[in-house]
Amino acid sequence: MSNSLTDKLTLIKIGGQVIDDEFKLERFLSDFSNIKGSKILVHGGGKIATEIASKLGVNTKMINGRRITDQPMLDVVTMVYGGLLNKKITAKLQQHHCNAIGLSGVDANLIQAKKRPVKEIDYGFAGDLDASSVNINMLKSLLASGLTPIFAALTHDGQGNMLNTNADTIASAIAVALSNFYEVSLVYCFEKKGVLLNVDDEHSLIEEIDYAYYQQLIAKKVIFEGMIPKLDNAFTAIKEGVKAVFIGKADDLNLFQTDSFGTKLMG
Amino acid sequence: MSNSLTDKLTLIKIGGQVIDDEFKLERFLSDFSNIKGSKILVHGGGKIATEIASKLGVNTKMINGRRITDQPMLDVVTMVYGGLLNKKITAKLQQHHCNAIGLSGVDANLIQAKKRPVKEIDYGFAGDLDASSVNINMLKSLLASGLTPIFAALTHDGQGNMLNTNADTIASAIAVALSNFYEVSLVYCFEKKGVLLNVDDEHSLIEEIDYAYYQQLIAKKVIFEGMIPKLDNAFTAIKEGVKAVFIGKADDLNLFQTDSFGTKLMG
Repeated sequence: MSNSLTDKLTLIKIGGQVIDDEFKLERFLSDFSNIKGSKILVHGGGKIATEIASKLGVNTKMINGRRITDQPMLDVVTMVYGGLLNKKITAKLQQHHCNAIGLSGVDANLIQAKKRPVKEIDYGFAGDLDASSVNINMLKSLLASGLTPIFAALTHDGQGNMLNTNADTIASAIAVALSNFYEVSLVYCFEKKGVLLNVDDEHSLIEEIDYAYYQQLIAKKVIFEGMIPKLDNAFTAIKEGVKAVFIGKADDLNLFQTDSFGTKLMG
Repeated sequence: MSNSLTDKLTLIKIGGQVIDDEFKLERFLSDFSNIKGSKILVHGGGKIATEIASKLGVNTKMINGRRITDQPMLDVVTMVYGGLLNKKITAKLQQHHCNAIGLSGVDANLIQAKKRPVKEIDYGFAGDLDASSVNINMLKSLLASGLTPIFAALTHDGQGNMLNTNADTIASAIAVALSNFYEVSLVYCFEKKGVLLNVDDEHSLIEEIDYAYYQQLIAKKVIFEGMIPKLDNAFTAIKEGVKAVFIGKADDLNLFQTDSFGTKLMG
């Protein structure tokens, strides 16, 4: 293989808070295109899938806050995530001279997931995956061609079906899978500047956090609720080989190159 | 370069008559996956784009039989061609162990077209292209990785916009562009078995036709109307380096390997 662990790879996940805002998205994509070295973008859906579903008469079914993906909803997310958003993002990046290639997990068999087994709840066409689901050689080959993969949060089951898949999970699975071949930084963009000492004060940003400090902050109830599973997943990715995980605001991505973006999680 | 002109490449274009029929599409994709050697599929849209546009309240505007692609219609075709149909086809091919990669011209900057200039009619976001619009090296690199590119009939303008683009034109542009590197067969699937001596008799198939015979058949009014631009384009592709063009029915694709599919056009 031609690359060594000194090759850096930046993998960024964005969600609805960027995608739903034309101005924020434009700025984010400009900053993203300026990041040096190999990079990958994973994007979620935003509100537009729900809006289009509603116009098409497809009901959004939720159980315990999780979307149920029946066949009509699968068609909607395949259209909106895999078509509209993925190609829009890719076209904007091409304009910024970033050689982006819009992909879903089905393309080149890059991510073959498993349809979630039906237990108490039938989630429909929802995909479960881990790092072993990622076609590492093919992804390395695309990166080696100078391409920047842009993943919509869709995978497939190898049986002819697309699967709606959590974007955070896709991002961490790819990051872990590539960590044997690149020095991977995984960046989660969310609505806040990072992990905050005071959740209501954006100036109370914690710049760096390791696992021991994280445990202290949980004990002190500084970190709580939704941040715990998010940070647990991030530390798991680090344990599995990812060099560093960053959590911050998409608007601040221009700070990433100067190493002052959001909160940096380390092993 | 590692390939020589003896490497064969089959490039097939399908349209609505296959895409709109679940059973026909399934059978076609099974036959397509059985074709040996390098191959590329280009697909048009079918009725579903018009149906979804109508449900979303987007009017289909036509002038002189040609679709006008305003921004709302561009979003619809990007969703339907680039998302729903492209990923559905790719997932089915992956099921048949064909390593398909769903693409639009924007991806990896594979086809950068020009937005059609506004003269008497403003066609909106419609793309014009020729063989020089095709990113030959990138396409060869994907083929060399063992991938089968599946193109939706969409390109981009390099200025951040997707462009709705004629699928026949994409197919011939790619075929010509690759003809310096592969022995290219270009296959147009349409509603009839091929070029017929009697348009109402499917048994009157002309198996082979060269340019001189074609001119005779026009003079005798055996070939007329819509077939003339179709065949003119095909002979142009041959003149520009494509080895052979086939015109036939998607249902008959299983006959392609035995060289008895549709009408074969030669230089």
